[in-house]
Amino acid sequence: MVGEFNLIEKYFVARQHPRKDVVLAAGDDCALVKAPNDVAIAISTDTLVAGTHFLVDANPAWVAHKALASNISDLVAMGATPAWVSLALTMPEVDEAWLEPFCTAFFELADYYGIQLVGGDTTKGPLSITLTVHGLVDANNALRRDGAKVGDWVFVTGNLGDSRAGLDVILNPDLCHRPHAQTLEKAHYLSTPRVLVGQALLDFATSSIDLSDGLISDIKHILHRSDVGVSIDIAKLPTSEHLELFLNDPTLAKQYALSSGEEYELCFTVPDELKENLDSRLAHCGVKVTCIGQIRSKGVFDIHYSGQPIEWEVSGYDHFK
Amino acid sequence: MVGEFNLIEKYFVARQHPRKDVVLAAGDDCALVKAPNDVAIAISTDTLVAGTHFLVDANPAWVAHKALASNISDLVAMGATPAWVSLALTMPEVDEAWLEPFCTAFFELADYYGIQLVGGDTTKGPLSITLTVHGLVDANNALRRDGAKVGDWVFVTGNLGDSRAGLDVILNPDLCHRPHAQTLEKAHYLSTPRVLVGQALLDFATSSIDLSDGLISDIKHILHRSDVGVSIDIAKLPTSEHLELFLNDPTLAKQYALSSGEEYELCFTVPDELKENLDSRLAHCGVKVTCIGQIRSKGVFDIHYSGQPIEWEVSGYDHFK
Repeated sequence: MVGEFNLIEKYFVARQHPRKDVVLAAGDDCALVKAPNDVAIAISTDTLVAGTHFLVDANPAWVAHKALASNISDLVAMGATPAWVSLALTMPEVDEAWLEPFCTAFFELADYYGIQLVGGDTTKGPLSITLTVHGLVDANNALRRDGAKVGDWVFVTGNLGDSRAGLDVILNPDLCHRPHAQTLEKAHYLSTPRVLVGQALLDFATSSIDLSDGLISDIKHILHRSDVGVSIDIAKLPTSEHLELFLNDPTLAKQYALSSGEEYELCFTVPDELKENLDSRLAHCGVKVTCIGQIRSKGVFDIHYSGQPIEWEVSGYDHFK
Repeated sequence: MVGEFNLIEKYFVARQHPRKDVVLAAGDDCALVKAPNDVAIAISTDTLVAGTHFLVDANPAWVAHKALASNISDLVAMGATPAWVSLALTMPEVDEAWLEPFCTAFFELADYYGIQLVGGDTTKGPLSITLTVHGLVDANNALRRDGAKVGDWVFVTGNLGDSRAGLDVILNPDLCHRPHAQTLEKAHYLSTPRVLVGQALLDFATSSIDLSDGLISDIKHILHRSDVGVSIDIAKLPTSEHLELFLNDPTLAKQYALSSGEEYELCFTVPDELKENLDSRLAHCGVKVTCIGQIRSKGVFDIHYSGQPIEWEVSGYDHFK
């Protein structure tokens, strides 16, 4: 067993390619970083708690990926470029068999996105991970939730619903014999932050949010902040073939797509006059985007299925409920 | 009971005087802040876990103070001016009787130090608090751990040992009848970050650290990073009258002063030629400073009592031990 200080030294210090804007990364009371002049810093914090956000016996590499990817996803939704992250790790005891794969996956993903660990804290207690991520973005162009206008088109990246189906498999092992159960379980943990899409949408999209609480919940934040309404065609929600085969129920697949949390795809709005240019704007990103609806006047919340009303109740995810 | 979103709205949004450098504080995927040109950002993260860093039934206002003050203390040790903080709060359930005093104390202290909450996360799980604080400092002048030179004098602010005595009272209620037990218990939670001292030491002190793990542990970080040794006279360690009356054992009081964790006083080194100017440099701070020793060559770790060797073992605090 190693103590707290050795733990930090052994697992966290000097594991990464250093960024030039990190003046001091570890070993002092604070890290010191420098942002380029006239660029804003985007900051976001998220906690993952064992038993709430992942099972205690979940693959530690997948937990690391989920923790970092979900945080980077918040930067993406602002169009920010990932820069620095701090990691607060609370564990019941120093478990090197857990730490080794956790750190390897964490630093692999961090290096991939060019985000550097600039400090953190290790404490004793029930397993949980809190990350604070920092990104860089032009403050005047940052993608916010409050810029959607009536007539803008609503898009999402990737497919929706896989994460919730994966959670079903995690919570109910009986489902693991269904088609693609393992793929979906993995999808729950291993989302891909859409960094290139976020950056490409700067100066183009009018609003943006990442899907962490479910499309139906998250889009309400855009509506609330932008003072608008929306019309969404559930028939257009993109779902994977894996999800469709796993559920074997087309309506249920759409329900999953609408409410699946921790999806970390991007939902954004584009003005009508730019809609045609979207494909060329995103051509280098290699990510599917799908138009699922349109912004309407404030008060309109029209969820339909190819123009037909739907008969089931829609709701998102709230950790405290 | 309110849900996660209402919780954030009700307790955390718009509770503070806004800073001009905060472009976007809450309600979006990230906060957006702007640092002045050519100034570095100091970042530090600390977690407080119920059962490890405070008792579950501890006064929530005191817990808030401890969490924020201990984090600001890391900024102080770099000479940084507090700017922004993010708060990740994990609770078993939404407990408004706990949240109200916690938030009131948190925002009172935040306003006092001019640090603005710029986002956070509320999650369900065992009670814990992770803060990431950000401060602003000239990167070339920041107080670091690695600048101590042989011959520099070692100083500490305030008194040492009270925090550990307070912890004794918290963990062993039988001690609450001893003199000043309540004062010491309060001292454990309600430390005062030495912001003015930290700033006054810029361009003056050669190294600095805040005392979170105990003087004997923390000073080793300066020695390690600066590649030097130290001589400390335990007789000179400043202790409060409260501590002396509580313990009623002068030697034990010095032991407490040497090893007391979570003290959040500042330990710093000053070159011989500046020693005489220290009092005038710190005159506006209203904080006692005491010279407790001198930096020696690498390898020297001389802890003595007015020149006499000491006979008891000295050690700091490690959460995982």
